[in-house]
Amino acid sequence: MIPIEIQNPADPRIAAYRDIRERDLTGRQGLFVAEGEVVLRTLLSPASLCRPVSLLMAKKRLSRFEAVIPEDLPVFVADQEVLDAIAGFHLHRGLLAVGQKPVARPVEDLLADAGDDAVILAAIGIGNHDNMGGLFRNAAAFGAAGLLLDDRCCDPFYRKAIRVSVGAVLRVPHAVSGTGEAIVTRLEKNGFEVIALTPGATEPLSGLKPGGRRAILVGSEGPGLPETLMKRCRAVAIPMSGGFDSLNVAVTAAIALHQLTRSA
Amino acid sequence: MIPIEIQNPADPRIAAYRDIRERDLTGRQGLFVAEGEVVLRTLLSPASLCRPVSLLMAKKRLSRFEAVIPEDLPVFVADQEVLDAIAGFHLHRGLLAVGQKPVARPVEDLLADAGDDAVILAAIGIGNHDNMGGLFRNAAAFGAAGLLLDDRCCDPFYRKAIRVSVGAVLRVPHAVSGTGEAIVTRLEKNGFEVIALTPGATEPLSGLKPGGRRAILVGSEGPGLPETLMKRCRAVAIPMSGGFDSLNVAVTAAIALHQLTRSA
Repeated sequence: MIPIEIQNPADPRIAAYRDIRERDLTGRQGLFVAEGEVVLRTLLSPASLCRPVSLLMAKKRLSRFEAVIPEDLPVFVADQEVLDAIAGFHLHRGLLAVGQKPVARPVEDLLADAGDDAVILAAIGIGNHDNMGGLFRNAAAFGAAGLLLDDRCCDPFYRKAIRVSVGAVLRVPHAVSGTGEAIVTRLEKNGFEVIALTPGATEPLSGLKPGGRRAILVGSEGPGLPETLMKRCRAVAIPMSGGFDSLNVAVTAAIALHQLTRSA
Repeated sequence: MIPIEIQNPADPRIAAYRDIRERDLTGRQGLFVAEGEVVLRTLLSPASLCRPVSLLMAKKRLSRFEAVIPEDLPVFVADQEVLDAIAGFHLHRGLLAVGQKPVARPVEDLLADAGDDAVILAAIGIGNHDNMGGLFRNAAAFGAAGLLLDDRCCDPFYRKAIRVSVGAVLRVPHAVSGTGEAIVTRLEKNGFEVIALTPGATEPLSGLKPGGRRAILVGSEGPGLPETLMKRCRAVAIPMSGGFDSLNVAVTAAIALHQLTRSA
């Protein structure tokens, strides 16, 4: 591996890294930008579903990563000031990578691969990147077989979502599948019982035991899940203390994942 | 209530609101700045443990709040440009409040008030304001009797922590009490069983049943809880899927709170 020194922030070879704060939100032809050591190590590990395209880091950090960087991967190095000028803000972690998103898999594929006791997380209308990252992190922590997202969800490959997920976005399989209705239909066809989390349900989550193919369905924090969708599912609630509004959606998903995957 | 119009960002009457991004991190003589509608409504509600000192909002928002604003509370109103100039950044929520922190209560007081089946959350070395806010939000959601923080924890009254807590920082009692060791000692003396959450424990959390005075002890995400502290407690784990690192500390606390307060 021969590092490529970059001295000019306008160097065309690092165009993909330029002004990432602004460009994050726009399309990138299947590429994404990731940052930080844990995420970088995930991208370079066998667990990653994504191909690394190149790395950009502060010169002084290179030695920490030499052992895990593949021979043929372009590695750009620069001084901190040049790095900051490229990124468009102070990059205190000093580590960036460009990766290729995995090929989009059909939902049927993802569900067919899931085992008899698989738990799938399905998210409807999640527009917040922190929450999206948290859902992936929690899905990874509890060994969920994958995530299904409806087409109103934000892109999990947004830089902040990847960071909040601690790299889980790069390793947990996911599929985007039209509407919430379509997702529930596909889950049912594949033998999954769909557990919809909603504060208004009368059945408490804590009565559920693990076992069998299960999907946990969560909606965005404000509006929650659409009424018509919940009616098709087994609606369960996490009882809240008097008057207090609600849990964060990623926290809700984690509690449900724990309930449905715990051993005791 | 007579709103006070502010036309000049340098007006001394709104000095407490000036450049809040920079000043957030410094001391404020027991005052704090809060933002957003949910937090503001909490501050003005009977559930709040804090006294509102003044409000500052965009003129057009005033009508939404007139019914809940006390007669004698100073309310400053300004155009959006003036608001942004005061705050030092674009205040898209257009709503700020200054409040007075509650009088610090001795830990003994807080524990004495707790019931026979009370659950207390104790946090050690939490330096991240998002996590601090999440801990308060989850404590409120599950009706924890209060939070105990060691003296290495960050200030929960930092603006972002309050926001992430969805106002719970203003309504959940807390006390800061020296070291983790001191906290565990006080809990034990008051008849609380201390449950320490740590990935290395052999006893799974999911075997625990609610009942009795319990404290849930969590540490910061990187280092976790000190070994010596865990040895004094009942250490339990949330089993993680193969190889994946760990859950967020606020998520961990939420799962434990659910386990120890659930009805089924």
